[in-house]
Amino acid sequence: MFSKQDYYYMALAIKLAKQGHYTTSPNPRVGCVLVNSIEGKVQIIGTGFHQKAGQGHAEVNALLDATNKFPKLIKDATAYVTLEPCSHFGRTPPCAQGLINAGVKRVVAAMVDPYPEVSGRGLKMLEQAGIQTEVGLLENEAKALNIGFIKVITEGLPYVRVKLAASLDGKTAMQSGESKWITSSNARCDVQKLRAQSCAVIAGAGSILTDNAKMTVRWSELGELKESYQEDKIRQPIRVVIDSKNRLTPDLDFFSQESAVILVRGKLDRIRLEKLHQWPHFVEQVELPMVKASVGEDKVDLTALLTLLAQRGLNDVLVESGAHLAGAFIEQNLVDELILYQAPKLMGGDGKNLVEMPNISTLTQAKSLSITDIRMVGCDIRITAKLEKIP
Amino acid sequence: MFSKQDYYYMALAIKLAKQGHYTTSPNPRVGCVLVNSIEGKVQIIGTGFHQKAGQGHAEVNALLDATNKFPKLIKDATAYVTLEPCSHFGRTPPCAQGLINAGVKRVVAAMVDPYPEVSGRGLKMLEQAGIQTEVGLLENEAKALNIGFIKVITEGLPYVRVKLAASLDGKTAMQSGESKWITSSNARCDVQKLRAQSCAVIAGAGSILTDNAKMTVRWSELGELKESYQEDKIRQPIRVVIDSKNRLTPDLDFFSQESAVILVRGKLDRIRLEKLHQWPHFVEQVELPMVKASVGEDKVDLTALLTLLAQRGLNDVLVESGAHLAGAFIEQNLVDELILYQAPKLMGGDGKNLVEMPNISTLTQAKSLSITDIRMVGCDIRITAKLEKIP
Repeated sequence: MFSKQDYYYMALAIKLAKQGHYTTSPNPRVGCVLVNSIEGKVQIIGTGFHQKAGQGHAEVNALLDATNKFPKLIKDATAYVTLEPCSHFGRTPPCAQGLINAGVKRVVAAMVDPYPEVSGRGLKMLEQAGIQTEVGLLENEAKALNIGFIKVITEGLPYVRVKLAASLDGKTAMQSGESKWITSSNARCDVQKLRAQSCAVIAGAGSILTDNAKMTVRWSELGELKESYQEDKIRQPIRVVIDSKNRLTPDLDFFSQESAVILVRGKLDRIRLEKLHQWPHFVEQVELPMVKASVGEDKVDLTALLTLLAQRGLNDVLVESGAHLAGAFIEQNLVDELILYQAPKLMGGDGKNLVEMPNISTLTQAKSLSITDIRMVGCDIRITAKLEKIP
Repeated sequence: MFSKQDYYYMALAIKLAKQGHYTTSPNPRVGCVLVNSIEGKVQIIGTGFHQKAGQGHAEVNALLDATNKFPKLIKDATAYVTLEPCSHFGRTPPCAQGLINAGVKRVVAAMVDPYPEVSGRGLKMLEQAGIQTEVGLLENEAKALNIGFIKVITEGLPYVRVKLAASLDGKTAMQSGESKWITSSNARCDVQKLRAQSCAVIAGAGSILTDNAKMTVRWSELGELKESYQEDKIRQPIRVVIDSKNRLTPDLDFFSQESAVILVRGKLDRIRLEKLHQWPHFVEQVELPMVKASVGEDKVDLTALLTLLAQRGLNDVLVESGAHLAGAFIEQNLVDELILYQAPKLMGGDGKNLVEMPNISTLTQAKSLSITDIRMVGCDIRITAKLEKIP
């Protein structure tokens, strides 16, 4: 049984972890709070969170903070940490050892390490040193912090969000193709934040060509996030473009910004491609198997693509594409979450559809979701919904 | 300047008026609160609201209530009333005279009477009797109570709501026509309340035939409204069906319930129609002019239809139709409000469209709305939005 106090400090540790929201990947977001009694009253003596791979873990940062502020109170302190302290030497020494050395009395972890190979080892190391350990406090909230990190470990696939925007009647453009702008600038700024939190964005060549899109994070459009996230700290997501018909050319605006691109090709056209264009140094061409489509042309194997991204530590992936590619991801049950912006407009039946899913023809086959959030973003509606898992 | 107390009592009067929400039409919803000092403290001495045409007005009911409870405190009381007291003899004597006779000292009205011919006369009558009058307190809230009533008076047209239901990608059925049920039973119950508050519902013959719909209010599906609205008090909306191709027949389920129907026909087919079927006594056939459509067949003149409904005191009208008729109302700028239920489903581009508006081909022509409410109804989303007025 956890006390009210335990809940309070763990909630604070989770809040701290969120400060790494835009920067920690491929590492998890972790927060730590150290508390001890000062004249009979429990007080916070140090806090920390993990900011970036290669930099201090949350526990190390919290211990450092306590050393500066209340060095005499570290002994016999309680540590609240959103993830089981690590037990291995990585780029930094194991955090479990750090807590042991510091002399803490009790460690409360929100969840165990999701890596099956090391899960529980950190807690065991602490227990063997005589430290009281508890686990499972605000576990769901802690898991939500690192939903992509955990999915990559447990399923070998990244957490996939699909961002879509349409009118209230589900249209993304007029029949003529006219589509700028359906949603408001507020909604477009909100999308910038989605991009900024993603390790990779996936688009089809068609969207890049139609919209002349760059798919980068524009700091100037990050709104209030700018206050906590400096322009020079921006982590651009890897831009993944599926171009199985080789329609992109190096002169596009898309290639004007020096920021990593993965250009996805179907296996078939290898030889021709290598000779086709001279790509900038930040563009990597990747060949993936094709799959036979029951309707229309063969397509790049999207599961193979996502597996590749997971292997590269790209935990959170955002699909920002047209109706066909988004529909393919959804139809193949590869999507975890939908973020749908709805502009307060009605465009009529001749407009272009939001998602094309040619293999779906009955209501039973239609994709079910559960709504997790609805809110206004400027004058538009933003709907967040999780795709139901197919057993 | 109104006092805090004034706001409080007028808000209460508005709350009382809402008790007539499902019953007062064609009359307005009106509430009245009488207050006076009891031992130096202002207290409520009587309250009333208008329940139904032919029954007591709000002021009369409040005076009656006060007569029963605090007869000695009616003299010099203040009356808060959501609409200017009437000055004419209708089915009941003028309320202004009633207040004068009772000896009240002050009357606060939220808004003046919207009928240009009598607007201000009730207040003038009170003033001439030496009563202090004030007007405009919570005026917007008071107007919202009677949005249809006011629109009929000022524009000669009813307040038109369009109810639509679709998946998140704006589809109402699969390509095969399969559509039962996209939204949840909670959403369908919510629609029953929309119907119950409407004076008339409008549908196309196609919907009636496809869904075998009755378009009546089913008391059993009214949810918590059942507690305040007895089954035998149900006011069924007039069912208006546009059947310009004469596809309906008297044997349909639609005609099994004895509840008024207006069967709308185009002017052209008069003679043939009269001989076509023997309709039940509650069915009235109405012939309306046709208008040339720029795309497709000629259609019944929808403005003429709405004008007819307004003339009959049908203040609030609900369009519950398919994509073409709903689209026609919207395209012709005849709709005030959209109520859209969105099921947490994705059906794909082959599904049927939410609204067909064949005359709209550019984004500038697309219809703009402003969202006034978003909320969950069961697992579905309900979006309420006002159509922007075309200047």
